[in-house]
Amino acid sequence: MIRARVITCSDAASRGTREDRSGPAVRAMLAEHGYDADVVIVPDDADAIAAAIIESTARLIVTTGGTGIAPRDVTPEATMRVCEKIIPGFGELMRAKSLGKTPMAALSRAQAATRGSTLV
Amino acid sequence: MIRARVITCSDAASRGTREDRSGPAVRAMLAEHGYDADVVIVPDDADAIAAAIIESTARLIVTTGGTGIAPRDVTPEATMRVCEKIIPGFGELMRAKSLGKTPMAALSRAQAATRGSTLV
Amino acid sequence: MIRARVITCSDAASRGTREDRSGPAVRAMLAEHGYDADVVIVPDDADAIAAAIIESTARLIVTTGGTGIAPRDVTPEATMRVCEKIIPGFGELMRAKSLGKTPMAALSRAQAATRGSTLV
Repeated sequence: MIRARVITCSDAASRGTREDRSGPAVRAMLAEHGYDADVVIVPDDADAIAAAIIESTARLIVTTGGTGIAPRDVTPEATMRVCEKIIPGFGELMRAKSLGKTPMAALSRAQAATRGSTLV
Repeated sequence: MIRARVITCSDAASRGTREDRSGPAVRAMLAEHGYDADVVIVPDDADAIAAAIIESTARLIVTTGGTGIAPRDVTPEATMRVCEKIIPGFGELMRAKSLGKTPMAALSRAQAATRGSTLV
Repeated sequence: MIRARVITCSDAASRGTREDRSGPAVRAMLAEHGYDADVVIVPDDADAIAAAIIESTARLIVTTGGTGIAPRDVTPEATMRVCEKIIPGFGELMRAKSLGKTPMAALSRAQAATRGSTLV
């Protein structure tokens, strides 16, 4: 099993006022592909998200939430603060796939990046 | 009606040597979707474009022109100077749609971004 | 004939331990479109790549190699260091075309940019 981390970025989930369903769902998908992931829940705060990325030694980090355009959606900014290389194709592919389901997909600022040998 | 602004970025239109047809066309389209837009014409100058964005209190700002690759095409740079978050999916979608009409669409540097609660 | 330059970015090719087949292949394709290109081979080093871009007076510069996500893949970073405007549509189009052949295309960080009146 390869070690991974799932970071749920959500003010409501971190306060406990909303159940985190994304995190366990992503962990289950990763397990099917041979990844052993821990799940951490952080508020929509760039410092908290960046810290959750830096403190992990996993080879793969998956964030969920915070990629919209609301003022509290800061996951892409937090990710880029601690990563070196943006991989634009991942965001393009996610949006292209999602546009088949909803035109709102164009609003997603989802992206991938590398931090050393870690894919975020 | 929601307030909007259309910014036509064109040296020729701002000098009056070419009629601005894009601006009124965009205003008409916005009107169909419930937006009441003013139209301002500025030269292809980053300071002028940025100022036209900042001075408006509209919820939606649409720029037209200046997204090519000529030296005077500076609309994306001017936009990013005064905005916080790039929304890459809008540019991707506009180019993908336009590629059905012309391969030149790949040259478009069109994009969207947020400035506070304003979509540009 | 329009002057062009092909830059092969590869540690192995620059050491001579691997034959550069990309460079001559790109030069042949450019010749079919009316471009007369020289080919230079540089290591996967941002300074070397940037220098090979700056020293050329060609109207079109094509780089090959170094757009993956390995630590030594620095071609996009080197390109951006000496260029003014990113043209996102080129990378999007290259990835969209390549995705028909391999899902690995999403990992490509290929892109285009302008440096003065030169397309890179």
